[in-house]
Amino acid sequence: MKFLLEKTDAASLARCGTVTTDHGVIQTPIFMPVGTVGSVKGVYHRDLVEDVRAQIILGNTYHLYLRPGLDVLRKAGGLHRFEGWDGPILTDSGGFQVFSLSPIRKLTPQGCTFSSHIDGSSHTFTPENNVDTQRIIGADIVMALDECCPGDADFRYAEKSLRLTQEWLDRFSARFEATEPLYGHSQTMFPIIQGCVYPELRKRAVDHALSLDCDLHGGYAIGGLAVWAPVAKTHELLELVCPLLPSGKPRYLMGVGTPVNILEGIARGIDMFDCVMPTRNGRNGMLFTWNGIMNMRNEKWKEDFSPIDPEGASFVDRKYSRAYLRHLFISGEMFAGMIASEHNLAFYLDLVRQARAHILEGDFIRWKDSVVPKLANRL
Amino acid sequence: MKFLLEKTDAASLARCGTVTTDHGVIQTPIFMPVGTVGSVKGVYHRDLVEDVRAQIILGNTYHLYLRPGLDVLRKAGGLHRFEGWDGPILTDSGGFQVFSLSPIRKLTPQGCTFSSHIDGSSHTFTPENNVDTQRIIGADIVMALDECCPGDADFRYAEKSLRLTQEWLDRFSARFEATEPLYGHSQTMFPIIQGCVYPELRKRAVDHALSLDCDLHGGYAIGGLAVWAPVAKTHELLELVCPLLPSGKPRYLMGVGTPVNILEGIARGIDMFDCVMPTRNGRNGMLFTWNGIMNMRNEKWKEDFSPIDPEGASFVDRKYSRAYLRHLFISGEMFAGMIASEHNLAFYLDLVRQARAHILEGDFIRWKDSVVPKLANRL
Repeated sequence: MKFLLEKTDAASLARCGTVTTDHGVIQTPIFMPVGTVGSVKGVYHRDLVEDVRAQIILGNTYHLYLRPGLDVLRKAGGLHRFEGWDGPILTDSGGFQVFSLSPIRKLTPQGCTFSSHIDGSSHTFTPENNVDTQRIIGADIVMALDECCPGDADFRYAEKSLRLTQEWLDRFSARFEATEPLYGHSQTMFPIIQGCVYPELRKRAVDHALSLDCDLHGGYAIGGLAVWAPVAKTHELLELVCPLLPSGKPRYLMGVGTPVNILEGIARGIDMFDCVMPTRNGRNGMLFTWNGIMNMRNEKWKEDFSPIDPEGASFVDRKYSRAYLRHLFISGEMFAGMIASEHNLAFYLDLVRQARAHILEGDFIRWKDSVVPKLANRL
Repeated sequence: MKFLLEKTDAASLARCGTVTTDHGVIQTPIFMPVGTVGSVKGVYHRDLVEDVRAQIILGNTYHLYLRPGLDVLRKAGGLHRFEGWDGPILTDSGGFQVFSLSPIRKLTPQGCTFSSHIDGSSHTFTPENNVDTQRIIGADIVMALDECCPGDADFRYAEKSLRLTQEWLDRFSARFEATEPLYGHSQTMFPIIQGCVYPELRKRAVDHALSLDCDLHGGYAIGGLAVWAPVAKTHELLELVCPLLPSGKPRYLMGVGTPVNILEGIARGIDMFDCVMPTRNGRNGMLFTWNGIMNMRNEKWKEDFSPIDPEGASFVDRKYSRAYLRHLFISGEMFAGMIASEHNLAFYLDLVRQARAHILEGDFIRWKDSVVPKLANRL
């Protein structure tokens, strides 16, 4: 993987660049649709390419490890071939899902033992077998195994958690260096900067990651600051961490977020984002647009026969009316979630594409400040 | 609406023809995907045209009347514009849904009073307001209001039921003749031949329908013989009814059926079919193919990385593997139902397209007899 930094904004830390993988090129800043078990829920791969204009999608190691399982994925020739996606893929390590989904989990220096949320069976991720797992899945970009420390942890716990994450990073990096990709395309790994809400720990996490063999690391992820973190704290920590990271590598803010979160992240030097909001909230009737947020179950759309989003980037935006989409939601039709997911993902990709264009044009902050107040509107 | 009978098979009653509506041409025999509330579940309209190659779709009057309701449909300019479908649409009268979905219903000579399965509210369909309702929905082809008599009714009940259906047909036809379409395109109506399992009553139903002003009736539907009816009885009744109907009008066998049912219906002179099986059974993991029926939840597909259906008519058939589709079903992904629905509808349209080609080629029965044994295979 190669990263070419094309431009840094004069008025902010915003940047744009190009990530080159064996499965294609990614123009940053970028939003990555989440395809948890090998499907971006409700959206055809064809439409991800042609309509949403996605450049890279995610898979979740925890889910894929449990289902379809490593035997199937290995025999399929990896996740790309299994799901029929020729573009770049990024996988997380599963650390966050162990924390958020598994009913029982136990952390030891060796690794984390967890029970499956599907059938209760017991499994262990170690840094070593997590590398092997992500080799079998075969994503272009893989994340180091970390402990995702709760946001309300006290300093003592957070420090202990970070120490574990650091030890795991050392072992993950060593195993990654000692192993090869399985399917003829190259893979790169990103360390995850943890440290909870503590600047001191975040700084320590960066120092440690940079002390390792940096050639091994294609970029850096920042964990533990997803949508539920307080915005001011997230901004403070991004303003601390990003400038400490090498400018020549992409930076990925994991699990973020709302359209405003994304633009504020870009302004602070983030290049890559992922979030389930466009699809999950879409299935619940929430649409993100340049003019604000629409709840499509709302009575107010009942007789609004205008297009879903006249400025929208997806074909669904002009093809279908608000009244029709509301009717589909009220009637419980699966087509509702399909349209909303397609719209939201196309909007998220449009959002980062516009951000990139304005960084290149040199007016990113002025543009961001003009659109942010509208984006959080409730229509 | 015009029907041009192009060819009748020498060895059977199979025929092919062309139905011309203001929204386009339909080549018969044809299968019509069901879009109950204005959406063929899980399938984009774009894909219905380009991939499934549907030529006409259904809407259900009972459902559309309850949701989104007539006010919305009238203001939208009818169902075509509401759902964004430019091709022909057929609506049933709602008689069958009153029978199958409404928890409380009461038949009187005046009409049928029923409670909504959604909120329990009370409504009445009369032949007159049912015409008005279907004028507002605006389908190209509308069905007369009938009582869908239970298949196990005794002769006495079936006779009484048929008499009611006949009275309603008279009133429906009169109201239809006295009213105009609302949206600038023409509409035609089909009487529904009922009579339960009794040949005597079926014959009486045909005689009565033909005694009315035949110019008013674009074609004839045969009701009460959907997938759950005994096959031998269905065949017997079709062999009785079809030859009694005028050859110059299309014949629609309502709610049928499996691929084999459809071919056997074609062999007996039926031109039009609809059924929820391709989408409903698809969502449950059942795929129809030229080689038989596949239950995609089955363990046997777990490591079968071959295409879903190498001979399939849809792009999903070669794009995705059996192992991947099985994984999606096992994981409960909505994408599973999308792929299966798209495949099944494309298969159903391919089925009737092939049937038509073989009628034109003059070898329909030989071809049908060669494919029927495979179609019902369990793979």
